[in-house]
Amino acid sequence: MTTSAQYRMRIRVQFDVTDAIGTASNAVAETGALIDEVVTVEGGAGQILRDFTVDATGIEHWPRIIAAIEAVHGASVLETTDRTLEVHLGGKIEQRNKYPLATRDDLAMTYTPGVARVSMAIAEDPELAYEYTIKRNTVAVVTDGSAVLGLGNIGAKAAMPVMEGKCCLFKEFAGIDAFPIALDSNDTAEIINAVRLLAPAFGGINLEDISAPRCFEIERELRDQLEIPVFHDDQHGTAVVVLAAVLNAAKLTGRSLDSMRVLVIGVGAAGVAVTEMLMAAGIRYLIGCDSRGALSTTREDYLDGSMNDAKRRYAEATNPDLRSGRPEDVIDGMDLVIGLSGARVLEPESLARMNRDAMVFAMANPTPEIDPSDAARYARIIATGRSDYPNQINNVLCFPGVFRGALDSRVRDITVEMQLAAARAIANIVGEGELRDDYIIPSALNRAVVPVVAQAVRDTALADAAALAGSG
Amino acid sequence: MTTSAQYRMRIRVQFDVTDAIGTASNAVAETGALIDEVVTVEGGAGQILRDFTVDATGIEHWPRIIAAIEAVHGASVLETTDRTLEVHLGGKIEQRNKYPLATRDDLAMTYTPGVARVSMAIAEDPELAYEYTIKRNTVAVVTDGSAVLGLGNIGAKAAMPVMEGKCCLFKEFAGIDAFPIALDSNDTAEIINAVRLLAPAFGGINLEDISAPRCFEIERELRDQLEIPVFHDDQHGTAVVVLAAVLNAAKLTGRSLDSMRVLVIGVGAAGVAVTEMLMAAGIRYLIGCDSRGALSTTREDYLDGSMNDAKRRYAEATNPDLRSGRPEDVIDGMDLVIGLSGARVLEPESLARMNRDAMVFAMANPTPEIDPSDAARYARIIATGRSDYPNQINNVLCFPGVFRGALDSRVRDITVEMQLAAARAIANIVGEGELRDDYIIPSALNRAVVPVVAQAVRDTALADAAALAGSG
Repeated sequence: MTTSAQYRMRIRVQFDVTDAIGTASNAVAETGALIDEVVTVEGGAGQILRDFTVDATGIEHWPRIIAAIEAVHGASVLETTDRTLEVHLGGKIEQRNKYPLATRDDLAMTYTPGVARVSMAIAEDPELAYEYTIKRNTVAVVTDGSAVLGLGNIGAKAAMPVMEGKCCLFKEFAGIDAFPIALDSNDTAEIINAVRLLAPAFGGINLEDISAPRCFEIERELRDQLEIPVFHDDQHGTAVVVLAAVLNAAKLTGRSLDSMRVLVIGVGAAGVAVTEMLMAAGIRYLIGCDSRGALSTTREDYLDGSMNDAKRRYAEATNPDLRSGRPEDVIDGMDLVIGLSGARVLEPESLARMNRDAMVFAMANPTPEIDPSDAARYARIIATGRSDYPNQINNVLCFPGVFRGALDSRVRDITVEMQLAAARAIANIVGEGELRDDYIIPSALNRAVVPVVAQAVRDTALADAAALAGSG
Repeated sequence: MTTSAQYRMRIRVQFDVTDAIGTASNAVAETGALIDEVVTVEGGAGQILRDFTVDATGIEHWPRIIAAIEAVHGASVLETTDRTLEVHLGGKIEQRNKYPLATRDDLAMTYTPGVARVSMAIAEDPELAYEYTIKRNTVAVVTDGSAVLGLGNIGAKAAMPVMEGKCCLFKEFAGIDAFPIALDSNDTAEIINAVRLLAPAFGGINLEDISAPRCFEIERELRDQLEIPVFHDDQHGTAVVVLAAVLNAAKLTGRSLDSMRVLVIGVGAAGVAVTEMLMAAGIRYLIGCDSRGALSTTREDYLDGSMNDAKRRYAEATNPDLRSGRPEDVIDGMDLVIGLSGARVLEPESLARMNRDAMVFAMANPTPEIDPSDAARYARIIATGRSDYPNQINNVLCFPGVFRGALDSRVRDITVEMQLAAARAIANIVGEGELRDDYIIPSALNRAVVPVVAQAVRDTALADAAALAGSG
């Protein structure tokens, strides 16, 4: 059991004697908790107060920590604070004015009557919205709360902490102002219409945590209808980062993409997009499995028409040998297994039937499709979605840079070519000399990533524009 | 012609000799411009550079100012900047993160995996959205761009500078985070649906610059459907501030509301709401005029059914003597005329037929229904919507405090009682000893207003809750 900052607690303890402080610290450590800091609190005369900040292995660990302190002679717990909840108190983002409004002149320029001249300029030339409004640097983070993290359809309000967190990442990593839009409907048409209506304020739309297959139609319709880029991060962000990892893993193991055999477990939003991205990059042999097994044009639900459109197209484009069965039944001779599904859906022993130098990306969070230490007995390269294992596939490597580049270039669409360029840029952050089995992808906190991803998108946009001009 | 900050320009001038600087300043002043500042610019070796910041009387004044400088021997204009446009460049608001995201622990608490625990808490108890998301302090400023200032239906994009400005006012005056939602539709049902869908993130909805009569249905439906307060500022904000001014004007002229005769010119969003508020406060005799004259139940469009619902109800509730005709035809014996219409719709001479100590509120912006200096020949108390005359009726006196109080109390609705309490609070800011004909309403920049308005709303909410508990 490892401790985690997500289970961080602050414990205020009163001591009768200073000697008890060390004893209490030892008692806390003996429960398996990690002590981050012990801070002296300003107390009343003669009071000995300390704030212990500790990371636990889970919330069920907390009562044991508190009991351990209480058991120390001369120590008593006054108060505990859940640090993660505290960080979210009142929300994590706020609005800031770029200029003060202290004088009548400030009002006259920022608001009425001066603002009328700015509005009229935009009314005459709508492109000026990019000059004189927040549009040029603002992205909407849109969800309907239907597929939030691994938590399922928890609704718009409960999705907000995640959407706000996403906005924090946009700002922190790419300087993009993002605002969370959590829609109180799971109706595809209603969602499309609402996003279309609220688009004028925004320079881009980041769709987030919308369940498949509705997410495909929502994204397709909005890309058609809107003049600003629309990007479903769970699909394309994941796909870009997976491809980056695949490019480097192939380099390390001496493989070429066009001869690589890939098994994708999970054919939801991410599974479909990852498959499309890998095939766009040159992978030709790929099988996808959902909960009913390998997709193919001979599967019963394909034949009887009950399979949804996204999976039908998937079945038609993949599985050339028309193999059938569970992941374990089709894993023989695979070079790469990508899990975009749920906890422990794959038997470790089956990995033995993959090709040598096998690669396993088990991305379910928090519990991967296969335990990384089990996988290590059979596979050479292992990646997960978790920050506490090597090779973390984290979307934050993609979406801030992709939107930075898209906003800078004012492209109407984030094309497949831009996504391929972004994947190559991420992969290339890890230099040839640095590549190792446990370092195929840069750290989520690597600040060198966003600039090169943004540059890759801008370069592709420029090349597109030049090609268009050349053909015109 | 008066100069205004809305026509502020910065002019960079290069001089051959320092003597020319004073000459140029005089030349600028002689055009009628106001020099705000003359700043020395860091120039190259031997260069004499100055930035003149000047307020003009209009943009047509600018070329004359530039020509005046160019005519000075040894002075040449290098560059000019429209200061108002400059303030709006890239928009006026931005998003700010409350916490940095520098470490893995920061990510683990702010985003995944820690955020999952916060989302689950809200999924189990949706009221916790007020604890752990931005909802408790965030208002949506929603428009469809159909009635922006006096500019008409200029659309969503062109409305954005005004909506952003409104958000700036929310933050500056009440510490409320506000976000502009400019909807790309004028369809009533589409607007209602979009706002309903995006409501989960917000603690309140401020409707803005939506044209009548659609605004009435949109507000009514949203108040019915949403669990957060919905407030159309053009209606109720205006109404609250007008009532505050009426209360003080009545005090000064020794009138009681129940005997006061009022003529309202303009029966749009503001006209309807002002009338309802005045009647809720006790005014009994009131006539409203639209462009076809006094509303009554004997007017042709009432009888033939072509009059819209809002005006039908208005006609039924007002004009007890069933008078008809233009404002000039029904002004005899009025105590108060309120213009919420357009420029110069009233002949000054007609004011002579009002009662003595007449009160005229001419609120059309930028050009009032009647010129205040003309009105001064007949009326004792004059108010306008402009900052360059005394007694400015400015909504900023109302909406920041009303929303502050509503968010603090988490009320579902901003009731008429709360609005009446807010109006009294604004009126009472001007002490008995301070009241004068040209000081019946506090300044828009008076920072004492928001706290007392918010307190009035909170007090009313508490009284409502107590009454409900008592009757339960």
